[in-house]
Formats: sequence, structure tokens, C-alpha cells
Amino acid sequence: MKQYTPIDFTKVDINGGFWKRRQQINRDTTVYTVERRFEDTGRFATFRFDWKEGEPNKPDIYWDSDVAKWMEAVAYLLEKGPAPDLEKKVDDLVDLIVKNQDPNGYFNVFFTVVKPEERFLHRTDHELYCAGHLIEAAVAYAHATGKTKFLDAMCRYADLIEQVFVKDRSAAFITPGHEEIELALVKLYRYTGEKRYLDLSKFFIDHRGEDPEEQYYGHVNGRHCQDHLPVREQKTAEGHAVRAAYLYAGMADVAYETDDQTLYDACNTLFDNIVERRMYITGGIGSEAYGEGFTLDYDLPNKTAYNESCASIAMIFFARRMWMLNADSRYADIAERVLYNGFLSSETLDGNAFFYENPLEIDPKLRHRNTAMKDTTARFPITQRVEVFGCSCCPPNITRFMASVGDLLYTTSDDTLFVHQYIQSSSAFDWAGKEVKIAQDTRYPIDGKIAITLEGDGLNGRKAAVRIPGWCKEYTISVNGAPFSGTPEKGYLYIPCGDGKTEVILDFVMKPVLMEASSHVQEDAGRVALQRGPVVYCLEGVDNGDDLRALAVDRSLALQEEYDEFFDGITLTGKGWRKAPSKELYAPVDDSLWQEQTLKFIPYYGFANRGETEMIVWIQAR
Amino acid sequence: MKQYTPIDFTKVDINGGFWKRRQQINRDTTVYTVERRFEDTGRFATFRFDWKEGEPNKPDIYWDSDVAKWMEAVAYLLEKGPAPDLEKKVDDLVDLIVKNQDPNGYFNVFFTVVKPEERFLHRTDHELYCAGHLIEAAVAYAHATGKTKFLDAMCRYADLIEQVFVKDRSAAFITPGHEEIELALVKLYRYTGEKRYLDLSKFFIDHRGEDPEEQYYGHVNGRHCQDHLPVREQKTAEGHAVRAAYLYAGMADVAYETDDQTLYDACNTLFDNIVERRMYITGGIGSEAYGEGFTLDYDLPNKTAYNESCASIAMIFFARRMWMLNADSRYADIAERVLYNGFLSSETLDGNAFFYENPLEIDPKLRHRNTAMKDTTARFPITQRVEVFGCSCCPPNITRFMASVGDLLYTTSDDTLFVHQYIQSSSAFDWAGKEVKIAQDTRYPIDGKIAITLEGDGLNGRKAAVRIPGWCKEYTISVNGAPFSGTPEKGYLYIPCGDGKTEVILDFVMKPVLMEASSHVQEDAGRVALQRGPVVYCLEGVDNGDDLRALAVDRSLALQEEYDEFFDGITLTGKGWRKAPSKELYAPVDDSLWQEQTLKFIPYYGFANRGETEMIVWIQAR
Repeated sequence: MKQYTPIDFTKVDINGGFWKRRQQINRDTTVYTVERRFEDTGRFATFRFDWKEGEPNKPDIYWDSDVAKWMEAVAYLLEKGPAPDLEKKVDDLVDLIVKNQDPNGYFNVFFTVVKPEERFLHRTDHELYCAGHLIEAAVAYAHATGKTKFLDAMCRYADLIEQVFVKDRSAAFITPGHEEIELALVKLYRYTGEKRYLDLSKFFIDHRGEDPEEQYYGHVNGRHCQDHLPVREQKTAEGHAVRAAYLYAGMADVAYETDDQTLYDACNTLFDNIVERRMYITGGIGSEAYGEGFTLDYDLPNKTAYNESCASIAMIFFARRMWMLNADSRYADIAERVLYNGFLSSETLDGNAFFYENPLEIDPKLRHRNTAMKDTTARFPITQRVEVFGCSCCPPNITRFMASVGDLLYTTSDDTLFVHQYIQSSSAFDWAGKEVKIAQDTRYPIDGKIAITLEGDGLNGRKAAVRIPGWCKEYTISVNGAPFSGTPEKGYLYIPCGDGKTEVILDFVMKPVLMEASSHVQEDAGRVALQRGPVVYCLEGVDNGDDLRALAVDRSLALQEEYDEFFDGITLTGKGWRKAPSKELYAPVDDSLWQEQTLKFIPYYGFANRGETEMIVWIQAR
Repeated sequence: MKQYTPIDFTKVDINGGFWKRRQQINRDTTVYTVERRFEDTGRFATFRFDWKEGEPNKPDIYWDSDVAKWMEAVAYLLEKGPAPDLEKKVDDLVDLIVKNQDPNGYFNVFFTVVKPEERFLHRTDHELYCAGHLIEAAVAYAHATGKTKFLDAMCRYADLIEQVFVKDRSAAFITPGHEEIELALVKLYRYTGEKRYLDLSKFFIDHRGEDPEEQYYGHVNGRHCQDHLPVREQKTAEGHAVRAAYLYAGMADVAYETDDQTLYDACNTLFDNIVERRMYITGGIGSEAYGEGFTLDYDLPNKTAYNESCASIAMIFFARRMWMLNADSRYADIAERVLYNGFLSSETLDGNAFFYENPLEIDPKLRHRNTAMKDTTARFPITQRVEVFGCSCCPPNITRFMASVGDLLYTTSDDTLFVHQYIQSSSAFDWAGKEVKIAQDTRYPIDGKIAITLEGDGLNGRKAAVRIPGWCKEYTISVNGAPFSGTPEKGYLYIPCGDGKTEVILDFVMKPVLMEASSHVQEDAGRVALQRGPVVYCLEGVDNGDDLRALAVDRSLALQEEYDEFFDGITLTGKGWRKAPSKELYAPVDDSLWQEQTLKFIPYYGFANRGETEMIVWIQAR
């Protein structure tokens, strides 16, 4: 199993283009939106540990993790520039954490102020999940600021967890019901060099599948928590999609650090199952709201798609770890699919509000219906993004991920620098003791032209491997002004670097393409989706009138491309059709009911930014 | 409002052809299947009124109605021939009813042996619904046998209901939560001539919408019980579909008997709403399981379609009453749609097992899935008919309806005999004091040829009006051997009768037609259904392999018609296509993946008779 070294976002300066604009919104708006809502809902105040029964804002089992993700986001923002107000806020929180941490290292708000007698008793109550996010935040904050108070506290907590779970075996369960700590412990190991944290992560992974089923609450079963089998025997992605993808990311981390082929094989099998059978074209995963989880192969309903925003983020984490293990572009292709669609859709274009769920079709009538019963089991997602949710895992996850998106660009092997994602940026880093500089100049994904400049001693005699995106069927490449031809290997084109500056000009031809799903996907049978580059498109009622299922795009794809500032992307406008309703509910097929209509497609990620309206991805073509 | 007089099934001898075979199975098998299961589940025993708390087979609130419908079925069978075993069983039940009836006339098993203190307190507990079915059975049994013991008992009960609800107003509610008694009371009025029963029915109809909402249990609201508005203000069919259609049938009865134009108008509006916006192509109504009810206009999902068998029957009741009020073929067209599809599908071809729900698409994987949670809100109907349900309203309803299907053939006005349905039969009846004989010789719906022979003094100078089915675009008619041409009026072609025998030969050309739904119906967008005559077709996995959504019928409709004894119908076999799955889950549209495949279509009513398998009605065409 060959390994690749990641270049993390701290070494990547996103200095313009699409992602710079996204990150600016994140820094200027999103992180403060989340902060404000966390203030309002008492999430920060809860760290004072003075909540009393009967008071409002009762801490919930996952609140620590919400706050931790926000703290982690602040740390990432601090890597790129000062933000004294935010840093002060985190410092204050760290003080509270240290002040309220148990002498034995334990730290959890819910299990201290609400149910102090029930620590490590309830598998599915997010206790270790919260610990994981606190650990991630502590590592990030130490790296960003050099301050180790938080990190030291979390090391003590991790040590306690090792004591309780591994040495004493005194917890009521063996492995967490909501995974996350696995990948967090690997981060802690990498930062501190303390192998016991890696061992603890491996312990939680290796012992999965051993807890008895009855440890779960009510409707949850082992499959929900990826506990139905030992992880190396799991062949299909099951259960809660966020837990699953965090687990798989952790498994990939441990495979990477321990050179564990069986774990790597399991990761590959699970990755394949997801991307070949259980993922939406938007990269969303988790097709059912109830259980927030995977269901069956090819069971991908559009209107009720769950596709939690956190699952999109977790899926990118998983994909990134896989490309650290294997230089195959399928991982970066999938990360790109998620990134430009299911991830970006999770917040408004202005960064002020969020989706927890990201469906592929919206009919507001169904959401708001008031039918024969006071409540109904037919559940449809909300139609507009909101500032906060009761369970608010997604908003801080979005802001921390957005701040660290530079993680997705590069890895190195002994002799090759891999370019996984195309994002305007400049980077400088050390490669086996020598300096390397790489810059990308691009409007991607608005167009497919990327100018890559490589220089530095580190590159001399080595190669750059650029990903040919899976969506791209036509491209040209020049190297130092001369056309370059070569055959991609597992999706990467390897370009030798000389001893001077190497200039690579990539031109991936971007034009609208009619996509279809595998014929195994029942929900999309006979329907198409429009994609341009990595961006999936949708129609909205506000542009095209309601009853979007009655629309068909013309197969000629006579569509005008236009840059639209509001969407910061290309809209596609052109020839389409609308089927007028027949006079009777059922009648012989009548093609004369098709009337030409101009259709306007917008990037899927921009849906629901102009009021409540119908939306659809999979439409008819004729 | 012109009125038409129905010729009921007792005067119609179904003497061969498709429906004779159905009725024979009903007489030989179905009525006994239901009897046996009612024995096994203690439904009959409960009429001994000796059940004690803690014993098995605790009576449920609707058991009286189950048994009553079976008794009514026996009465209808007795109209057509002796069945001493069945008659003895009913006589024994009648003895128990009379023995256990309260001195004041009250009769209800549940509210005597389980909750005797709670009579007339619980609106939604089916008390008056049970009374309605008992009244219907009593009328039927008196007519069939001349024995009036049961009828007399039910008259006493109806009198008590009048006393409690109208005179004393001592019940805790004004109108029933589950309608049915309305139409039953009109039957009682017609049979006894006692106008107070008609008045009581009218009372229940006129006062609908006056009960306070909080009288309903848990999840049920006023809309569920058609109690959200006074009936004359209701514009859309809402709530529980069976309750709704029984109510509408009762409303039409009262409109008929009282010449109430406002009530008739309401019926028409509701009928239109159903058939133009809320009905499946199979005639099924009630698109959602939760609440067993109507949802929104054009909201007609196929896999989760509820389409209760009882709702199909109730819809035919409603349609029949509408054609007694207005000689417009739309009512008989709709009854025909239900009859040959959603009604017939409700039992196995051998008459031994039943569907409560009649979906338009089945994927057994979805029904049997075991996903992230122990239970799941995504609910899919059972895939195979069963002998009995906990709530077993449908099986006895099916057997009573099948025995009385001859009700659907004829009405008369002053000068016209209307032929609404085409069923092999002979009839003789009195028309304004003179005899009329009418016979139909036909294989309908196997083919569209019907020879109608009319004779008798009653016809002299009058007309026969034959329905030109809505599905039929091409037909020939001859009268006494000579071609007959005329323009149908509201779907009926009026044929003058001479003083001798009149022979009408109808030939409705039956061939497969590609049908589509209104483009407002999202679920069927871009899909077609095959229909031949009144019969809707489906594909099953057992004939065509799984993944039925990947199939497309060829638009040429190159299909071979073949009579199949197993289905007692025409199967259609011919050119179609299967889209092979693409290598990747999502890929550019690739028409080369279409591979020719012979498809075999069977009548929808015959689905799920050959083991568990996929089924689909709405497919692709190319």
C-alpha cells in the first residue's frame, strides 16, 4: 500500500477566484452567524457548567461538539489571518473547559450538569463523539496559535478515555455509538507523536461489531451505528451516513498510519459501494431521513433525499484520506462531485443560513400539505435554509470545512506531486528537504482553464500529476508552451518537471452534458440531469414556472452559457419543452401537448436562494 | 334533476362470460374463505356476547361490520340460488343478534361486551358504521329470504339511533366518524317505506361539519372524517377514502330521494375532484397509507399508493348513484375503470386471498428492507394477497360486491333504458307496468363485441341508450343487422326500439393504447401505461426480469394479443427495450445501452398471482 503525504491547507493560500470568494463569506459572515446563533441558544453559556434543571437552554448531548466545531473553525481562520474577537471568544471557552474539566480529565457538559451519574453508560449518547470534536478543535487551536492549554486538557481527557475503555474496560460499551473520535485521535497522534492515541483509535475500530445489539436506544440498531459486523467484514455502507463516513475516514487514517492492508481493503469496498450504488449525483449520501442513513443499493429518491450536509463533509474527508492511500482519481473525482454540489448547497450564497438536508427535488405543496391526519409519515425536507437547527451539527461543520478546503489540493509521493483539485491558490512547502512552489490560476469551476506554475529545487527530476476530471471527455494540455500528450494513469497525467519553472496550462472543455443514472436507479429512470464541469444543474419554479416535472430539456442542448454574479456561476438558458396538462387525468399519449419553452438552469448549489419555489434536478429530455 | 330508476342485480342473471366465472369463484370459494377466517379469528363467536377480558379474540370496534358484510354477501348469493349451509349460518347469527340485542334496540358487540358504559361517546369508534352494515345486511337478508327477524331487529336499532341522535340529542357527537350508515338508512327507507329512516340519513348528512374538532382521537382530524366543512361546502375529496366515498354515495342517495339540487351539486363537485385529480389510472383512490386517505390534487405516488379495496368498492357505489341522477357516461366510465382494475386486483384470481392496498408498483426489496432503524417511516404495501387482515373490512366487502355486480348494468328513465356496463347476462323486469327483456352476449372485456337483444312491450316506442366507453375511439354499431350511426349524447348513443325484437351489435375496437397521465401528475411524468379496452396492464418481474423501471415499451406497440386462461384475459407480448446499467452510477446519456427485449404485459388485476415479484404500471416508452 503506497502512501502519499498530504499538503495541508495551512500551506495553501487561496488567493482569488471562486473559493476565495466562498472563504471570504465564511470569514466575514458564516462564522459570526453560527456564533450568534450559538449565543442565542445558550450553547456557549453551557460551558459555564451552571445550568440548572428548569432553566431554558438545557444542554443537549451533542452541544459540546457544536461548539468544538466552531472553535475548530476559528482556529482554521486564525491560520490565515488575525481575528482577535474570535480568538478571544475561543480563549474564554478554553478557560471554561479547563476550569470545568474533572480532575481525572473528563469533560462533557451534558454528562456533568444534566446526568453526571451516567458517564460512559450510554453508547448512543454522543459522549465520545463530543470528545472527538473537542480533540480536533484542540489540535487545530494549538497549531494555529501555539497555545497548548486546550490541547493539554484534551490529552488528559483522551488519556482518561484510554484508561476507561482499554485498560479498565469499565465503560458500559466498547466502541462509540456515534463515530468521530477515531479520526480525531489520529490527528492527536500526528500532532503529539503519542502512539497511544493511534492505538486507541485502532482499538475503537478493531472492536467495532462486538457490542451487543441491545445497547442501542429505541429505534436504533447495530446497522445504524455501523456495528452490525466487524469493520473488515462490512461490504456495504449502512446506517447513519455521517457516522459511517466519519468511521470510514478514521479507518483510512489507521490503515495509513499502520499500513493495514485489510483495513484499506475494507475502506475501498465501502467507498465503492457508496459511489457506485448509494450516492446522489450531487454527491449527497444518506437517502432516508428516518435514521439519517443509507438504505439499499440504488434506492435514491429525490424528493425525500436526506443528504445531510455533515455527511457531504464527512464523505470528502473519507475521499481525501483514500487519495492519501492510492493515487487513483476516483477519490478526488468524488470529492469534487460532493464539493461543488451537495456541500455547496448546504448554505445560502450569502453564507447566512443552512440546510441540514439537501434534497434533489422540492415541491413546497408536499412539504406544507395538511392532509387527512394531524401528522403524516410522508416526510419532506424544509424548503428554505435556516440559521440554526435544534440539532445544529451542520452549520459549524460547514464553516470549519470551508476554512480548510485548501486541504484538498495536493499530496506528494517520493517522486510525484499530485494535483487533486483545481482551486486558485499559491503554495510553498518543503518536499524531502527542498522547497517547492506551486500556483494555480483559474476561474474553475466557472471555466475549465487552469494555469499551474511549478518551481523550486524540490521538483527537479520529479513529476507533477494532474487529475483529468472524470467528467471531462475533451481537454488540451500544454507544458511550457508546447502541447503535451500522454495517457492518464488511473486518472492522473504525469508531467516531468525540469530544473526551472514548469508552466502547465490545462484546458478542460466545459460544456453542458446530459447525464443519466444507472438504469438500476428507479427514481431517475427515463430522466436526465444537466451537468457542466463538476457542477450539477437544476431548474427552479421561480425561473421556469411550477410543475417542473412537466418540463423537458431539448436533446440538442441549445443552451446559452452566461456568468451570473448572484450564483457566482454559469447559468444555462435555452430550448426546452413543457407538456401542457391533458384535459382528462388519463388519456392516450398526445405529443401535441408539448409546447416549446425556454428553460433556465442554475447551479444546483444555488437553489432556494430566491424564496420558496419548486426545484428539480432530474428532468425529462426530448 | 332528472332521475333514473336502477334495475338491481336480483333482476340480472349473469349467465356466462367473464363475470359469471368471477361470480362462480365468489360463490364456490371466496364466501367460504372469508367464513373460515372469521371462524378462526373469533369474529362469529363474538356474537355470542360471552367474551371475557383476558380471553383471546377480543372483539374490535369494527367486527360487527365485518360479519354484517359477510351476511349481506350470503343474502346476495341466496338471491341467485340455494346455499343451505350459508343460510343456516346466517340464521344462527340472526338468532344471536336478536337474543343479545338490548331491550331498547341497541346492538353492538364491542360496546356491550368490552366497553358497555361508553356507548355513543366515541365518534371515531365505528359504532354507527357497524350499525350501517348491519342494516344493509338485514335489508338484503329480508329481501333474499323473506325472513324479517333480522330486519325487525335493525329497525328497532335504527329507531333507537334516531331517538338518541335526533330527538334526545343525548349522544356525545352529532354525526358518525366513519360514515356508512347514511347510505344504509336510505336502503332501509326504500325497503320499509318508513320516511324517518331517510330523514335520519339526511340528518347525518346535513349536520356534518358541526362537531368540534377535538372529538377525534389522536392523529385524526376533521378532514379525515369529511367533517371539516358542511358537505355542501366541500369542494375537494378529503380524508379517509372509504369514509369519503361512502358519505358521497349517501349524499347522492339523499339527493335522489329528496330532489336536493345543492346536495347533487356537491356530489358532482366531489366526483369531479376525485376523477380529475385524485384517482389512479386503476381507479384506486386514497394515495397515502397514513390516514388511508386522499392527499393533494395530482399527488399520486405509485409504490406507496394505498388504494384500499373498500375504497374501490365505495367509489363504484358513488358512481352508480351518480348515474341514477344524471345520464352522463363519465360515471359509468369511472365505475368501469375501477371495476376492471382496482377492484379486481383486490383478490387473487382463485378468490382465496385479498389485498387491502392496491399499489401500482411493487419492489419487494423496498418492502422487506432492513435499514438503519428497527422500524422505518418509509412504508411500502405488502406484496402478496393474504387471507385475512387484523382489520378485515375488505374481504367480506369484496364478496358482497362481487355477488351484486349485476347492479351496475341498467337504469331506466321514462323513455330510455340505459345500458351502463357490458356483462354477459339476461334480464327481465317490469317497466312502467310492461315487461322488458334484455340480454347481453359478450366476452367483454376480453373483446369489445356485445350483442344486445331487447324485447318486450315495455320497449315499444322507447329507446335503448348504450354507453360508448370513454376508452373507445373507434366502434361500429348495427341495429337489426343494419349499420347504425348517431352521435352520442353525454357518452350514450340512443337507439330507438321497435315493437319487435331489437338486436344491437356493438363492436368497440379493443387494442392496446399508450396512456399518459396529466402532466400535473409528477409521479408519472415521462411515463406511459398500457391499456386495452378498460383493462390497465402491468409488467411483472417473473415475466420480464427485475428492474422493471429500466424497461420501455416500443412506441410501435408491436404487441401480440393472446387469451390466457390463468388471467382470464388478454396478455400482450412484443417489442420492448431494456436499458442496461451504465458502468458508472452517473454517466452521459448513452442510448446504445438500450437493448431490445420482448415484454409481456398482463392485466393489472392479475398481478401478484405467481409469487412475490416486481410489478409496474407506469413505464418508459421509446
